[in-house]
Amino acid sequence: MLSPISDHLREVLAGCAADTSGAVADYIPELAAVDPGLLGVSLSTVDGAVYDAGDVEVPFTIQSISKPFVYALALADRGLDAVLAEVDVEPSGEAFNELSLEKGSGRPLNPMINAGALVVHTMLGDLASPDDRFDRLLTGLSAFAGRTLDVDEAAYRSETATAFRNYAIANMLRSHGTIQGDPDEVVAGYTRQCSIRVTARDLALMAATLANAGTNPLTEEQVVDEVVVRQVLSVMATCGMYDSAGDWISTVGFPAKSGVSGGIIGALPGQVGIAAFSPQLDDHGSSVRGVEVCRRLSRDMGLHMMDAPQPARATIRRTHSVRHVDGGAATVYSLHGSIQFAGAERLVRDLDEAAALTSDVVLDLSRVHTINDVARRMVLEVVRRLTLAGHHVTLVDPEETLPDPDAGEGIRPPVVPTVEEAARHSHE
Amino acid sequence: MLSPISDHLREVLAGCAADTSGAVADYIPELAAVDPGLLGVSLSTVDGAVYDAGDVEVPFTIQSISKPFVYALALADRGLDAVLAEVDVEPSGEAFNELSLEKGSGRPLNPMINAGALVVHTMLGDLASPDDRFDRLLTGLSAFAGRTLDVDEAAYRSETATAFRNYAIANMLRSHGTIQGDPDEVVAGYTRQCSIRVTARDLALMAATLANAGTNPLTEEQVVDEVVVRQVLSVMATCGMYDSAGDWISTVGFPAKSGVSGGIIGALPGQVGIAAFSPQLDDHGSSVRGVEVCRRLSRDMGLHMMDAPQPARATIRRTHSVRHVDGGAATVYSLHGSIQFAGAERLVRDLDEAAALTSDVVLDLSRVHTINDVARRMVLEVVRRLTLAGHHVTLVDPEETLPDPDAGEGIRPPVVPTVEEAARHSHE
Amino acid sequence: MLSPISDHLREVLAGCAADTSGAVADYIPELAAVDPGLLGVSLSTVDGAVYDAGDVEVPFTIQSISKPFVYALALADRGLDAVLAEVDVEPSGEAFNELSLEKGSGRPLNPMINAGALVVHTMLGDLASPDDRFDRLLTGLSAFAGRTLDVDEAAYRSETATAFRNYAIANMLRSHGTIQGDPDEVVAGYTRQCSIRVTARDLALMAATLANAGTNPLTEEQVVDEVVVRQVLSVMATCGMYDSAGDWISTVGFPAKSGVSGGIIGALPGQVGIAAFSPQLDDHGSSVRGVEVCRRLSRDMGLHMMDAPQPARATIRRTHSVRHVDGGAATVYSLHGSIQFAGAERLVRDLDEAAALTSDVVLDLSRVHTINDVARRMVLEVVRRLTLAGHHVTLVDPEETLPDPDAGEGIRPPVVPTVEEAARHSHE
Amino acid sequence: MLSPISDHLREVLAGCAADTSGAVADYIPELAAVDPGLLGVSLSTVDGAVYDAGDVEVPFTIQSISKPFVYALALADRGLDAVLAEVDVEPSGEAFNELSLEKGSGRPLNPMINAGALVVHTMLGDLASPDDRFDRLLTGLSAFAGRTLDVDEAAYRSETATAFRNYAIANMLRSHGTIQGDPDEVVAGYTRQCSIRVTARDLALMAATLANAGTNPLTEEQVVDEVVVRQVLSVMATCGMYDSAGDWISTVGFPAKSGVSGGIIGALPGQVGIAAFSPQLDDHGSSVRGVEVCRRLSRDMGLHMMDAPQPARATIRRTHSVRHVDGGAATVYSLHGSIQFAGAERLVRDLDEAAALTSDVVLDLSRVHTINDVARRMVLEVVRRLTLAGHHVTLVDPEETLPDPDAGEGIRPPVVPTVEEAARHSHE
Repeated sequence: MLSPISDHLREVLAGCAADTSGAVADYIPELAAVDPGLLGVSLSTVDGAVYDAGDVEVPFTIQSISKPFVYALALADRGLDAVLAEVDVEPSGEAFNELSLEKGSGRPLNPMINAGALVVHTMLGDLASPDDRFDRLLTGLSAFAGRTLDVDEAAYRSETATAFRNYAIANMLRSHGTIQGDPDEVVAGYTRQCSIRVTARDLALMAATLANAGTNPLTEEQVVDEVVVRQVLSVMATCGMYDSAGDWISTVGFPAKSGVSGGIIGALPGQVGIAAFSPQLDDHGSSVRGVEVCRRLSRDMGLHMMDAPQPARATIRRTHSVRHVDGGAATVYSLHGSIQFAGAERLVRDLDEAAALTSDVVLDLSRVHTINDVARRMVLEVVRRLTLAGHHVTLVDPEETLPDPDAGEGIRPPVVPTVEEAARHSHE
Repeated sequence: MLSPISDHLREVLAGCAADTSGAVADYIPELAAVDPGLLGVSLSTVDGAVYDAGDVEVPFTIQSISKPFVYALALADRGLDAVLAEVDVEPSGEAFNELSLEKGSGRPLNPMINAGALVVHTMLGDLASPDDRFDRLLTGLSAFAGRTLDVDEAAYRSETATAFRNYAIANMLRSHGTIQGDPDEVVAGYTRQCSIRVTARDLALMAATLANAGTNPLTEEQVVDEVVVRQVLSVMATCGMYDSAGDWISTVGFPAKSGVSGGIIGALPGQVGIAAFSPQLDDHGSSVRGVEVCRRLSRDMGLHMMDAPQPARATIRRTHSVRHVDGGAATVYSLHGSIQFAGAERLVRDLDEAAALTSDVVLDLSRVHTINDVARRMVLEVVRRLTLAGHHVTLVDPEETLPDPDAGEGIRPPVVPTVEEAARHSHE
Repeated sequence: MLSPISDHLREVLAGCAADTSGAVADYIPELAAVDPGLLGVSLSTVDGAVYDAGDVEVPFTIQSISKPFVYALALADRGLDAVLAEVDVEPSGEAFNELSLEKGSGRPLNPMINAGALVVHTMLGDLASPDDRFDRLLTGLSAFAGRTLDVDEAAYRSETATAFRNYAIANMLRSHGTIQGDPDEVVAGYTRQCSIRVTARDLALMAATLANAGTNPLTEEQVVDEVVVRQVLSVMATCGMYDSAGDWISTVGFPAKSGVSGGIIGALPGQVGIAAFSPQLDDHGSSVRGVEVCRRLSRDMGLHMMDAPQPARATIRRTHSVRHVDGGAATVYSLHGSIQFAGAERLVRDLDEAAALTSDVVLDLSRVHTINDVARRMVLEVVRRLTLAGHHVTLVDPEETLPDPDAGEGIRPPVVPTVEEAARHSHE
Repeated sequence: MLSPISDHLREVLAGCAADTSGAVADYIPELAAVDPGLLGVSLSTVDGAVYDAGDVEVPFTIQSISKPFVYALALADRGLDAVLAEVDVEPSGEAFNELSLEKGSGRPLNPMINAGALVVHTMLGDLASPDDRFDRLLTGLSAFAGRTLDVDEAAYRSETATAFRNYAIANMLRSHGTIQGDPDEVVAGYTRQCSIRVTARDLALMAATLANAGTNPLTEEQVVDEVVVRQVLSVMATCGMYDSAGDWISTVGFPAKSGVSGGIIGALPGQVGIAAFSPQLDDHGSSVRGVEVCRRLSRDMGLHMMDAPQPARATIRRTHSVRHVDGGAATVYSLHGSIQFAGAERLVRDLDEAAALTSDVVLDLSRVHTINDVARRMVLEVVRRLTLAGHHVTLVDPEETLPDPDAGEGIRPPVVPTVEEAARHSHE
């Protein structure tokens, strides 16, 4: 095994293991009975490589970590506007108002607090029976995890008996009309949701599905679309870690969510999903060592979302002239790397400065490995403008990095596999 | 002019121009006298390309947009811990508490509200005279902008006469001991800070300096370091847009800050700085059209920080064998693009699977354009492990993408400019 | 009928009748079905004279007006300290916190809000079964009213079905451990409490029982003692009228409590109990016309508790000398009126100034109609001091206004029925 | 000296002296320098008898105890509505909002907090110069005290230098427009107000002036009218003792106000004014021993305003018939005591029951010592009704307890000095 990643994960766990502060959640017997020494971390890349250390196969109830995923399912089923109408997305700050409902409307402040999660729980599918709703929910969470999850029925029954706070909240929501029907039934369904059994490895894959724009890295199932994911990650960023949104973002810097059974997840868009598990909780109800694992991974692996990548070098690595077979000359622009707005902007700028030189322009995309929507539109717009200005533009794109290069107004540059062929092609 | 970016900016302005809702700030004559129809947008890339549309050269007072930059200077001068000890970083939520001080301690909730900004204002330099402090401040903001800024003295005098709220806050902070000295003097200094004159183009460059990890894209001066920038952008993300942190992050998705003179800035790490200017304000005191410009740019240009890049293709584009001159074979791994944690992980994984094949391994970095710290460490760790396992490793790195390849334990692979040379080099 | 009081009550109703603003409570069918035009007022003196006008015999559910009376019963059953330990006595101010529980402890802010009333409901008797508890409660409220009350079972069932807010509060209290057992059962019991059927005349007598130091003016049953009443009236004064304690005390000036069925009571210690009934409610949930009736009665009848009585004239109406049969002279001090601290102080002062005159002192109490504890102690202390100073003191007290005149140290002045007899008695 | 009152006050002080908890206010040197062992209590009756114990002649600055008196002056000068428009009368509850201003309006919650007191300070007189305003204020407070008060100029200067909180509040009020002009000037005036020098004896007389419906018991000057006093005492009852309005009213039961220099006053309408002085303060800023003195006086002297007087015996002591000179019979109703609503009601009731007996009715008021407005109106109305019903009514009122007995409709009963004369008078 060459990879240092698992070793690093083990080092992180070793560095956190000594902190035995905090206490396991004790309000239900099922949670209190857990071994407080359990400790595990799992990391999944967006293309499905999974690294583990410690107790990553121990099942535990998902608890509040279900919230972002059920929120994702509700957004998928009802649409953003319908869900926003019922549940806001603002951090609740210090929990001075135990219910965190908007005054007057009774709208929960965000979907990561219990009030919001109870409402979101009722927004799955087509308002069918609670059983149908739960089937949808369990199927959806299983899709995030990439395997069929089940419910810890003993934990479910145990929690139901003492879920006074949730009964309180559900009845308050019912009194405002924010939820319909029988509040007890909603609490029952939500408690089942919280009792779904997962491992740290499951959670890492669920988080990686968010990091991967909604597609499970292993099964490659598109569970939800990227607009849903953007909303879920945004809400996790500001509301996922309870009373300390600002502190979490500045020191850890990726969207996260914790649960009272000791789990915590993090997701860095386009990179990784992370999950840690350790049952002892701090005063906010988050895993003491789970939080520390996140802090260390952020610091050691450069996962803070406010860190700029090292300044990009020129997207255009080389500009050179090639001779045509007929003796004319073309200017070749060799692009490479992953092109987003900033890269496309640089390309356009360079072309702008250089375009006067030759009538033939070759865009060599053979070393580009991705190009996003805005960059694609910008490149095609430049092709259009060059063409309208009388230039011949040829694309070298052997792997169809820029498929279907329709620049509008009937303009469609020739696409060839090599620069050599482009040279032959030009001016023909 | 080939670039569609300026055209797009003009389209954005055209799309926003019809919204004449809101009202100019009228609490001081200087602000009330502004032309409400002014509208401009400027965008600067992290390498200093600036695109403009509309009224980008009209000077106005910077007001609250000074806050993140002065916060950056205080962090640079005093260090993160010292500043955090005086000003927290939590969103203030709906402004139920007019002062947003922590109960008991009197610590302002964050540096983007006036209470926090007043404290931060006093934390520049070495507690010297107010004049020295202001010199430091004006010099610092000028460095962010890349040109020497000045103060609108008429606006300063006008605001001083009616700054009752700030006098109130400063006296309250003084009563808590959060600031020292004469509260009136602190308000005077802070009001001068707010009266610094900028244009939308200045602000775009200031924002781009944040997006560029603290280095001004044009002057290339390192104004503050990247740890400072991370903190500033994190606080802007959660506290920059007053009462609606959650809504802003989910719909716009980049750190931002607005001011009552009608300016608003946004910064997307590693990509761009943005500034818009339009004097009519919404109920939160943010520019109506400035906010709309940000929304459109985020949507049209894919600037939401929760959007994952399109899934990266293999970092290793090609693996092939080359013959040695002595008849043996080496396996060549050709990497390319910008390598961060996720890319390095993928490289390590591929090597892990493939390493059994040959004793000679060539890592071709000639198509890699950047590699960050964690990725660098991971590559070197793999080199170390491969070497310890008996493999010969050669780096092809013509542009020193991976400078000083010290893998520890005396292991330092040979670096050559081309694969061909690596083939010759192996097993020698 | 000579009395102008009933005429005045009719005038008050006529003055209020035109105000048809407000709306009947509509959250349960039973309340919504009431005739909104009903209007009645009843007034009972502390010695049981009852004056009525309007719809004073129409039964309605007591709702929140039960709260002070059940609070009184809990204080009687458990003692002040035990009840204060569970429910505080502070006004809740504007209802920004929907539950008005103390942070941390979960202790309701006062017994007049639902949270407090739910806790108080569980504190009757000896924690026996809910049925026993309710028997105690119904018997107790009947004793306040002076007749056997019953429950409106239809209203009870109707409210139970929609008591979501109370279920919410009871579950929240249960989650804090402030109440024990099954929250649903507590809500059921409390809802039955609110469904007890009363008339405005009943309520006037219940209020008069409070005004009469706990003794029902008609049945003369001592329902609770005066220490309980003091506590109940104090809490009604500051917490009885929801969001506007200050406004109510300054404009109306007597302790009060309203209920959503349209009733409102007021009690002025030592004088009267008042009840009004009119179903249309203001935004606070208090009867629009009921509140106005209270305002008018306070103003017209001088019932504001901050109004000083007109300055008392001398308690000692006449001082004169009488001749003894033996030719000596005694000084006679004729007291009259109702003697409390201020009156006793005046007496003592006058005696102090006058005592030098004669060795014989006659205190004529025949025109005194009441004397309270502190005044009694002061008079006896003066008797003691006069006696120790060598004076002969005789009390004229034909009606035993000052029974058992034991001044301590074996001093016990002779008591005679007339001043004439005192004259004979002196110096014998 | 016969009176036990001073002895009792000394006993109360002795009982409190051992409690040396708390600390003197130390935020200004002038307050910190006080002897912490000082302890005094003074009590003044509404007719001006003053009892003292301990350090009642030591001068100290009045501080917040000035608030109710300046509020009284503002009410007198501007009227209730004008003052209520600027300052509400609601208790501020726990001081979560440091300024206790209404959201939006900026109206202070009540005149007993600094924000309210600052506004009230500006509402004296006719908005003339600060000097004129202060003259009015000092003259007014001197009238309450019954002697010419002065300002402790050293304390004033000392406090001005550190009055940051008040500068904060004044500027915030100015930013809302709640006060006009220069905030610093308002703070200066208010600080002078707080620096007025008083003794415990002065404060007892000031409180007694409130208890005496606005008339100083010694000078007999009517400082403010009874409507003003009613408002002031109401506000003191709910807002005088900061965070614990409910606790204070239930355990002490009379309106009160404390100040950080260690003074505390209480006023029981119609009875007494009380002042205690002891510099060590509790966490609320009230004198530890001063509060305890109030508790003991309330308990020992029966001063709780929710205590009903012992049930009044019949107002009509004797009903008897007298023979006319012409052989006819009159029924004589002998009233006595202090007649308010409840007593008048009882009279009317008895008359109603008895009126059939004879055509001649004699109301003997010779033993009545006071009768208030409502009672007077009721007696006259009964006279009117009896007269209209054909009865002859005669008043025996030797001391004009019921002056100008105009019953309306030209009815005016004869007034005679004795029952004997009434007998002669009847039917003549």
